[in-house]
Amino acid sequence: MERYKVVIIGSGNVACHLAKVIDKFHHVVQVYSRNIENASNLAVQLHDCNCIDSLNEIEMNADLYLISVSDDAIKDVIDAMPKVKGVVAHTSGSIGIEVLSRKMRHVGVFYPLQTFSKEVEVKLSEVPIFLEASDQQSLSALETLAHALSDKIFYANSDQRQTLHIAAVFACNFFNHLLYLSTEILKEKGYSLDVLYPLINVTVSKAFSAGAFNSQTGPAVRGDINTIHKHIDLVDPSIKEIYQILSQSIIDRHEIHKNI
Amino acid sequence: MERYKVVIIGSGNVACHLAKVIDKFHHVVQVYSRNIENASNLAVQLHDCNCIDSLNEIEMNADLYLISVSDDAIKDVIDAMPKVKGVVAHTSGSIGIEVLSRKMRHVGVFYPLQTFSKEVEVKLSEVPIFLEASDQQSLSALETLAHALSDKIFYANSDQRQTLHIAAVFACNFFNHLLYLSTEILKEKGYSLDVLYPLINVTVSKAFSAGAFNSQTGPAVRGDINTIHKHIDLVDPSIKEIYQILSQSIIDRHEIHKNI
Repeated sequence: MERYKVVIIGSGNVACHLAKVIDKFHHVVQVYSRNIENASNLAVQLHDCNCIDSLNEIEMNADLYLISVSDDAIKDVIDAMPKVKGVVAHTSGSIGIEVLSRKMRHVGVFYPLQTFSKEVEVKLSEVPIFLEASDQQSLSALETLAHALSDKIFYANSDQRQTLHIAAVFACNFFNHLLYLSTEILKEKGYSLDVLYPLINVTVSKAFSAGAFNSQTGPAVRGDINTIHKHIDLVDPSIKEIYQILSQSIIDRHEIHKNI
Repeated sequence: MERYKVVIIGSGNVACHLAKVIDKFHHVVQVYSRNIENASNLAVQLHDCNCIDSLNEIEMNADLYLISVSDDAIKDVIDAMPKVKGVVAHTSGSIGIEVLSRKMRHVGVFYPLQTFSKEVEVKLSEVPIFLEASDQQSLSALETLAHALSDKIFYANSDQRQTLHIAAVFACNFFNHLLYLSTEILKEKGYSLDVLYPLINVTVSKAFSAGAFNSQTGPAVRGDINTIHKHIDLVDPSIKEIYQILSQSIIDRHEIHKNI
């Protein structure tokens, strides 16, 4: 495998996770951050890597420039960067490729579908990476990089990435909020969310083995309107509507033909 | 530990899971099912156990009778059973203890908070078991039984079990439905739900380590109304309201002070 010279632009959670794994297979020559201390903290963890806080000092002969900054800052980075010959890719799920191609020739998107934080260790090898590129040469470079990191490589244009983001909002952001609402419900009777942990784990396992449609359980899919009404009466006024709308959605999708 | 004589009434998923584990520590003397074949299929997997399909033939000298049938059938079982001296307990989350105490003297509830199915293996030792009993003697018997099965014993009266059920509807039934909606969203662009598996796993880990409130991510908690509007425009009409109401709930709980 060809060993690329890679420049990492950014020093947040995604940049750090990616840089450390890329460092095992390629040469991360430089880390940029507006804050030189952050750049330095990351660079010292990598082999033979320098750090900069000005995009004018960027290494001109790198094969790949990975921009892993907040969505709002991507355009500013491109504006401030000199025009380079290597492949320039960002790691954002919601920003289009065109923000890069206005200025650079070889561009792409390298989007790992995962939430990165300091608290939870992430096995990058299991994280799906979604690629998009302006041309075959750029795509090949991103594929080479991706294959070193993960077993799960997919392709997604901007429209598809948008859809991935929406699906993740449902399955992760909204799910997490349901966990918060459950926490509050349980707290009132003296229990912690922990009592639901085994049930949640099995719910995940079943949804991925048998499919979420076939795995649906609970009052709504049984058409048990009595229990649904009892629950809606009992829950806090702020979540009655959520209970009602999600239950009706289950009833409708499973064609139970009842109204709450 | 005292070795109890236990009668299992029912032969469904919960009855089978419980019977096999109880059999390791106590003596399951008898299995009842309306369908003698089902009773027999379970009984042959246990040590020195007979099977019956008539409640008149029930063993009168057992220490414990565990009724693990559908909620609707519990009352019928009690009506048809002779009055026994041992402890009679059901395993339902939503049925009160009084359905038993009308006829029997020593009664209780033995509620394992888990969904049992043939497809997914369940480690009973990690499943929380919620107990309720009419008297100290019945409670002791149920505690002895529970401690042999699980490390997680809790107490719950009917009101608390109701709350556990509501919390489980949010964290499991509604969550599973969100997974189904995500499946549909992804399918339209050629992806399977599998691409979200690592993200969902980390979402669960973070919620249980840092708490769901602190772990909330996504457009709503960032107050990113533009993205929320874009998503609501893009999704299928049948789920626009779900997106809107859950996002507004996140915004309100996190005191972002914005309206979608």
